[in-house]
Amino acid sequence: MSGGDQQVSPDAFLAMGREVIASQPFSVLIGAELHALSRGYIELQVPIFDKLKQQDGFAHGGVVSYLADNALTFAGGTAMAVPVVLSEFKINYVRPAIGERLIARARAVHFGSSQAVCTCEVFAVQDGEEKLCALAQGTIARLPDPSQKST
Amino acid sequence: MSGGDQQVSPDAFLAMGREVIASQPFSVLIGAELHALSRGYIELQVPIFDKLKQQDGFAHGGVVSYLADNALTFAGGTAMAVPVVLSEFKINYVRPAIGERLIARARAVHFGSSQAVCTCEVFAVQDGEEKLCALAQGTIARLPDPSQKST
Amino acid sequence: MSGGDQQVSPDAFLAMGREVIASQPFSVLIGAELHALSRGYIELQVPIFDKLKQQDGFAHGGVVSYLADNALTFAGGTAMAVPVVLSEFKINYVRPAIGERLIARARAVHFGSSQAVCTCEVFAVQDGEEKLCALAQGTIARLPDPSQKST
Amino acid sequence: MSGGDQQVSPDAFLAMGREVIASQPFSVLIGAELHALSRGYIELQVPIFDKLKQQDGFAHGGVVSYLADNALTFAGGTAMAVPVVLSEFKINYVRPAIGERLIARARAVHFGSSQAVCTCEVFAVQDGEEKLCALAQGTIARLPDPSQKST
Repeated sequence: MSGGDQQVSPDAFLAMGREVIASQPFSVLIGAELHALSRGYIELQVPIFDKLKQQDGFAHGGVVSYLADNALTFAGGTAMAVPVVLSEFKINYVRPAIGERLIARARAVHFGSSQAVCTCEVFAVQDGEEKLCALAQGTIARLPDPSQKST
Repeated sequence: MSGGDQQVSPDAFLAMGREVIASQPFSVLIGAELHALSRGYIELQVPIFDKLKQQDGFAHGGVVSYLADNALTFAGGTAMAVPVVLSEFKINYVRPAIGERLIARARAVHFGSSQAVCTCEVFAVQDGEEKLCALAQGTIARLPDPSQKST
Repeated sequence: MSGGDQQVSPDAFLAMGREVIASQPFSVLIGAELHALSRGYIELQVPIFDKLKQQDGFAHGGVVSYLADNALTFAGGTAMAVPVVLSEFKINYVRPAIGERLIARARAVHFGSSQAVCTCEVFAVQDGEEKLCALAQGTIARLPDPSQKST
Repeated sequence: MSGGDQQVSPDAFLAMGREVIASQPFSVLIGAELHALSRGYIELQVPIFDKLKQQDGFAHGGVVSYLADNALTFAGGTAMAVPVVLSEFKINYVRPAIGERLIARARAVHFGSSQAVCTCEVFAVQDGEEKLCALAQGTIARLPDPSQKST
């Protein structure tokens, strides 16, 4: 995906992104839906079904952090158009994730040949109204050459 | 849990922690297992079954961030012994999460009456060997008085 | 400052902010200049003189992190209008801080009665052109009641 | 420094590190002192003189973040032994920086050929007693090949 052809149409690009999501068993388990994708931008959604909740009826923080993790990675990967990995991120939870659906929107704020810095907002939708529930910022790194070894 | 009685035995404390995990549908979905719990310390594990993976066969970053999220919160909550919420955290992924099982160990490094700062290491266990795959640091806040309003 | 009167004029508010900056010896040492201040927003600048540089002629990362630290705190403090302290922040450096001047702009993205989450962009100005050199996100906390004790 | 000869004696290594600090005008302005340096480990200190303070008499948060910034970079650079740059870091302030001196100790927790993840503790020394005042975690990246261009 990340290294995808830059000449494809917007619809084909979105379809390619959906194939990537569909190939991630954990994204399927969580029920992630890709709603928009372009170079350096993604909108990823998750309907809040019961199995995603914690004891108080809100979506678990881990669902919100999953959304941030995946959305940041797609934003950086599509911006750089090379195979990437999420190097790190930081997330602030600002409101409980209450409602029918979570929407994560991430964008690449800066990118070069070796890394991208992306930001992500996660909104909870309740009765049709979006409320910010988390804010994230992270670094997406070009996958190191397989010939290089980590210690 | 977080506000639990401080006079309970270690076994009863662990049992109480397991009840909290069992009451979180998302933790059940992921298959989280509480292996150790004391004031300011937790060891939380997740066997890596297929549905937790991403397209390359590793555990998805969202599973690792779930572990950090939940472990940090328990470490802070048991240290402060009041109802808490995870305010924010930062995570660095240092190795792919490959293997049979993930182990998160979190501890409260500093805490006061209003917040705790905790760190968490996540290890992947492959062929019996633990390898560090992520490092996290976060802030756990005492739940604000329900009479206070957020804007 | 943070707990200042909300009825003051914009000019008086800015003047009050400048008094706070002038009362911080480290801000004076660095040469910080307050260019704009309103509730939840600040623009703080630093002319890059030689003593702020590192060995390669760029402004030292510590100058950039000082700007983020101070700007985030002012954005949160003026939004909440109570005495505050910077609880934590995260910063990504995206470009070397080269040029005549650094400009930090921070805003409160969300705030309640106990904390604010703010973001900050730091730009380097070279030959009149602004370029993003760092991106930060942090938590500003209401100063705990002095009767509460930290352990 | 970062790419220095790995065969040098501990004393020579420390002396090389002090030359780097002495070549950073901002480190000289702040009064940073290098007390220990080895591959993947550093202890950097700053005596708290009046110009480093904020309005309440504590060392300014920007001094603490400078220490974290520089210590993390040295820990990563000496671990990787190549020219590096601090990519990002996160810092939690847990206590006011009160006392005669600040001590930052940073270590490389994991490193490969392209990046290192390091942690740093900053202590304030008052009446001879060290108290933790901040906790940081960051990513140090190998300097990109000059032939690669950032956009």
